[in-house]
Amino acid sequence: MLVVMQAHATEEQVRAVCQKIESLGYRAHPMPGATRTAIGITGNQGEIEQGALDEMAGVQEVIRVSKPYKLVSRDVKEENTVIRFAGTAATIGGKNLAIIAGPCAIESREQAFAVAGHVHRAGAQFFRGGAYKPRTSPYTFQGMGEEGLRIMAEVRDQFGMKIITEAIDHESLDLVEHYADVIQIGARNMQNFSLLKRAGRAKKPVLLKRGMSATLEEFFMAAEYIMSEGNYNVVLCERGVRTFADHTRNTLDLSLVPAVQRLSHLPIVVDPSHGTGKRNKVTPMSRASGMQSLYPEQFDDLMMQVRQIAAVVGREIVPIGSAPKRSAAEIVPAVAR
Amino acid sequence: MLVVMQAHATEEQVRAVCQKIESLGYRAHPMPGATRTAIGITGNQGEIEQGALDEMAGVQEVIRVSKPYKLVSRDVKEENTVIRFAGTAATIGGKNLAIIAGPCAIESREQAFAVAGHVHRAGAQFFRGGAYKPRTSPYTFQGMGEEGLRIMAEVRDQFGMKIITEAIDHESLDLVEHYADVIQIGARNMQNFSLLKRAGRAKKPVLLKRGMSATLEEFFMAAEYIMSEGNYNVVLCERGVRTFADHTRNTLDLSLVPAVQRLSHLPIVVDPSHGTGKRNKVTPMSRASGMQSLYPEQFDDLMMQVRQIAAVVGREIVPIGSAPKRSAAEIVPAVAR
Amino acid sequence: MLVVMQAHATEEQVRAVCQKIESLGYRAHPMPGATRTAIGITGNQGEIEQGALDEMAGVQEVIRVSKPYKLVSRDVKEENTVIRFAGTAATIGGKNLAIIAGPCAIESREQAFAVAGHVHRAGAQFFRGGAYKPRTSPYTFQGMGEEGLRIMAEVRDQFGMKIITEAIDHESLDLVEHYADVIQIGARNMQNFSLLKRAGRAKKPVLLKRGMSATLEEFFMAAEYIMSEGNYNVVLCERGVRTFADHTRNTLDLSLVPAVQRLSHLPIVVDPSHGTGKRNKVTPMSRASGMQSLYPEQFDDLMMQVRQIAAVVGREIVPIGSAPKRSAAEIVPAVAR
Amino acid sequence: MLVVMQAHATEEQVRAVCQKIESLGYRAHPMPGATRTAIGITGNQGEIEQGALDEMAGVQEVIRVSKPYKLVSRDVKEENTVIRFAGTAATIGGKNLAIIAGPCAIESREQAFAVAGHVHRAGAQFFRGGAYKPRTSPYTFQGMGEEGLRIMAEVRDQFGMKIITEAIDHESLDLVEHYADVIQIGARNMQNFSLLKRAGRAKKPVLLKRGMSATLEEFFMAAEYIMSEGNYNVVLCERGVRTFADHTRNTLDLSLVPAVQRLSHLPIVVDPSHGTGKRNKVTPMSRASGMQSLYPEQFDDLMMQVRQIAAVVGREIVPIGSAPKRSAAEIVPAVAR
Repeated sequence: MLVVMQAHATEEQVRAVCQKIESLGYRAHPMPGATRTAIGITGNQGEIEQGALDEMAGVQEVIRVSKPYKLVSRDVKEENTVIRFAGTAATIGGKNLAIIAGPCAIESREQAFAVAGHVHRAGAQFFRGGAYKPRTSPYTFQGMGEEGLRIMAEVRDQFGMKIITEAIDHESLDLVEHYADVIQIGARNMQNFSLLKRAGRAKKPVLLKRGMSATLEEFFMAAEYIMSEGNYNVVLCERGVRTFADHTRNTLDLSLVPAVQRLSHLPIVVDPSHGTGKRNKVTPMSRASGMQSLYPEQFDDLMMQVRQIAAVVGREIVPIGSAPKRSAAEIVPAVAR
Repeated sequence: MLVVMQAHATEEQVRAVCQKIESLGYRAHPMPGATRTAIGITGNQGEIEQGALDEMAGVQEVIRVSKPYKLVSRDVKEENTVIRFAGTAATIGGKNLAIIAGPCAIESREQAFAVAGHVHRAGAQFFRGGAYKPRTSPYTFQGMGEEGLRIMAEVRDQFGMKIITEAIDHESLDLVEHYADVIQIGARNMQNFSLLKRAGRAKKPVLLKRGMSATLEEFFMAAEYIMSEGNYNVVLCERGVRTFADHTRNTLDLSLVPAVQRLSHLPIVVDPSHGTGKRNKVTPMSRASGMQSLYPEQFDDLMMQVRQIAAVVGREIVPIGSAPKRSAAEIVPAVAR
Repeated sequence: MLVVMQAHATEEQVRAVCQKIESLGYRAHPMPGATRTAIGITGNQGEIEQGALDEMAGVQEVIRVSKPYKLVSRDVKEENTVIRFAGTAATIGGKNLAIIAGPCAIESREQAFAVAGHVHRAGAQFFRGGAYKPRTSPYTFQGMGEEGLRIMAEVRDQFGMKIITEAIDHESLDLVEHYADVIQIGARNMQNFSLLKRAGRAKKPVLLKRGMSATLEEFFMAAEYIMSEGNYNVVLCERGVRTFADHTRNTLDLSLVPAVQRLSHLPIVVDPSHGTGKRNKVTPMSRASGMQSLYPEQFDDLMMQVRQIAAVVGREIVPIGSAPKRSAAEIVPAVAR
Repeated sequence: MLVVMQAHATEEQVRAVCQKIESLGYRAHPMPGATRTAIGITGNQGEIEQGALDEMAGVQEVIRVSKPYKLVSRDVKEENTVIRFAGTAATIGGKNLAIIAGPCAIESREQAFAVAGHVHRAGAQFFRGGAYKPRTSPYTFQGMGEEGLRIMAEVRDQFGMKIITEAIDHESLDLVEHYADVIQIGARNMQNFSLLKRAGRAKKPVLLKRGMSATLEEFFMAAEYIMSEGNYNVVLCERGVRTFADHTRNTLDLSLVPAVQRLSHLPIVVDPSHGTGKRNKVTPMSRASGMQSLYPEQFDDLMMQVRQIAAVVGREIVPIGSAPKRSAAEIVPAVAR
């Protein structure tokens, strides 16, 4: 259910409606928009009875939302959600393109700095690397853990790039929330509802990757879990889905991007690194969507092309932080649409 | 890597090999078989160097396993794993058919006892109900929690059926391990590796459901996560996969059963309740595989047919506990192959 | 659109309604049922205007069918369609189980007779072999063509079994219609609409295999193409669909069977030979659904089990023709549900 | 099998090797390249025995090709195949971008000319419209047939654009070959091997659309069927595959493009018109891949963006014919990569 406030409703009126909602045993989610505030209502006990809110001061209308997702929907918030980061012009979901790049896993301080230097110089504003790796096999290297997080924090200090890294359970989420700027929830945990709720109580934005066989609605519902706990800074991420096709590991589903943009105010980024699996497919797929694991000079070429194509569609890439000079090992990038 | 001991190797020799393995920084997993013991070796640091173990007393050969899964494999353990339960003839994976039935979610003591009475009388040895429900929507009833577990424990006391119920995070797993007889890991958490590791340290058997788009190898690797922590009592469960087909919610993949049986010693059960989604498909699909959400009299008819078909293929259904008389609401059953 | 005649409507009245329909530029498809006749109306020019038929003698009601398929639907014909064959008790879609078996391709007269003798002795009433093989590669043996058809006609003469074989284009369909008893349309041609129309003008029943990624509705529409040309003897055949799963070539979708039975009067058979791809999965999958490529003694064992399971669900296997004794090479069977 | 001729081999030597191959009962497919000629060998009877060809004059080496496709492969022909059209600079597979656009079905002369005028003015060099429409339902408009082909021929006369249209069986293929410039084989007929062989004997290029669940190898094998009959002018076309995802009708698999380009010399075009199904997804998906059903002004905007993006990746769009001024109804475009 959704309460749409009048354009001139006062903050006091908004607060009063929220209190009324909470007093009835529900949760209120005020979402201020450019012209008016909408208040999402969530809770397990079914719908609030007709008439309880309609008559309150400042209320324009009460809408019964038929879609299973509410806070995710453009019905609740018409304007695009733009994730901002203190002390920088870089955003996710804004007019400027967000470039996210880094190594698959943080393996050492040296490797992290080499890659970070390279991608920063090429224009990335976000550095992503794995400290906790959800591996198919229990016998594969599972990441450096907190030590990896500390290295990424140093990368931020040196280059100014914001840090994105994955949390795989409550314990690692506590640490990721402490060290990083964006908490990533991986595809395998997209319906780990307990983890989503914990992410919803975090104070940092969440980058939520689409599950390997998640429908659009399930993807939205996973974001709804995070938002229903009060964290509205969610970035959706398409990373390829599982199909019969065997020429790539996953089939990147680019048509999700306009579908998300039509129905939701949340930003959507594309991560082509799992959708291709082979370097020779990276540059073309990245031009279409984002980027992938590349050699440093391939990454530079790609960034040059992306810059020019961004201009064609009226967008640009703004720099972040300072720019030292180093050479990188292997780079896994993504790009916000 | 796998150490195959000689047929006449002593327990002492087995223990010595295990100690050697652990001293090298690996984990040893002794799996006693009918004629000989095999010792699986797991660990992140790569393979043990050739020659370290070959010469030890009682060792027949050291095999380098190329498959990514080890403990799951028939290479490590030729005989079927049979999960036994103290004080009862009921097994999972044995010659007798294991019948698992119960409501989707525990909603009240009354509902649980009504269903339990019915399915028990019809021949079910395992009672399954949800206390923690992983719901697509945060606004749907999420289960009764510990209160639901307590009700199921009472069901066990009254009917003698063993209790199976799902854990969705570390916290609920602690409680499920305490109250239930089998810990279920749901499809959405099949690659929640942190939860799998916790289940691997539990003292109760684990029923692991196949993820919605998990390949056979990924399914095995998820079981390997549990076993690599020392819990070898894992039951695999096919519950349908996601396909383009839209006439059912999921497509039940029965061909997984013989594939699992060829490659692994672990028992496999089939849960048709998600694979069909509609009552009118339940009886035929259940005859082929197991059962689904049914009205009580449908369940009785089905059990009669299953009993007769089991006899055709040389199996039977053994009773468990005492048999009071009650009438059930709605029943979600599964059956072990 | 569908005209339901009154229970006591005369043949004359039915004929008059059909003539009226045809005079309006549509096609009439009278389908006599146990208690009344329904007349399906098909044609490209949209719906007949309200009132044109309602008032005619013998008409009970005129129904606007919202589903895209009409002749396939139980709305048009409530009773199951049973395909009968002159001079034999064997049917497809009747109470008795139809057993279809034979080699993948007819390779020689000797091979055909060896397999035919074996499967006939074990109880098969239908012999299926390929004379025209739709091969993925142009460089693979494409079948014996008309010579293969002649061999199968001899098999019929000798054993009494009815012949099923695939047509791949108009030319081969002419020949298959001449020599065989049932015309098979393969999965790859399920939406070869030109071929479907030709099959709809044939005088023999058509066994239509589900396309590798066909939805239930598309499958029905393909049958509708055949029926709309006047051939109402269509047998649907589930043979597995394409999914991400890689442990079998195709995923057999047994849940299609009850779905078809609910919505359509057409018989549905299951062909597990593509759904598994490996002999060791054949016996279990065949017990659940039908059969596959088996060694002769495996086929015999299976038939014995199928006979007993059929009895449990109230069905039986009736013999056909005489029974010589021979030994078979390799057998690809299917079974009607 | 593949015979690689020496760089300086004479035409006479090539001819002699071909004759030798044919005399052994196989087919020879000479494929002249920039520096040398390769001769593909196809036929049903297995491999030619070692030594039969190695010693002939001008032969450099005889390669046993392990891949199931031969003529499609870059092993046989290293250089990209470029489809050229007499009297125009427009190509498919060349450096310049090929723009293919037109209505879904030809409905009238007026509609065809309106759309043609618009897309021609915007830069399309190929006009595509359906005269034979493979419809899921037998009751849907199936196309204007030969009359539609005649209208498209007039479009070519007036605008100079080359005509692409679908053939659905042998009969329509005869007519399409007569009237059009490129013969389209639709997704539903990708494994209609009889039709593929007929297309392989046609004198016009063939645009082959990927089947709804075709793997890359199956797609290549379908092209191989055409080429094995002697028609080497095949254009592959990605149009989306069937997956569980329900937010679009099909999932456009753009990663196929670099995969095809790596393994095959054949040109690949992308047709996003089925991959999205909704106008609001067209412009973004088209920028990534090609285009879709659009309003005229949307098409113009898109062409402007495509022109600029083409320039970024070093390609351009060359005009074709003269340019009258008209306004279009609805446009379904595709673009060659």
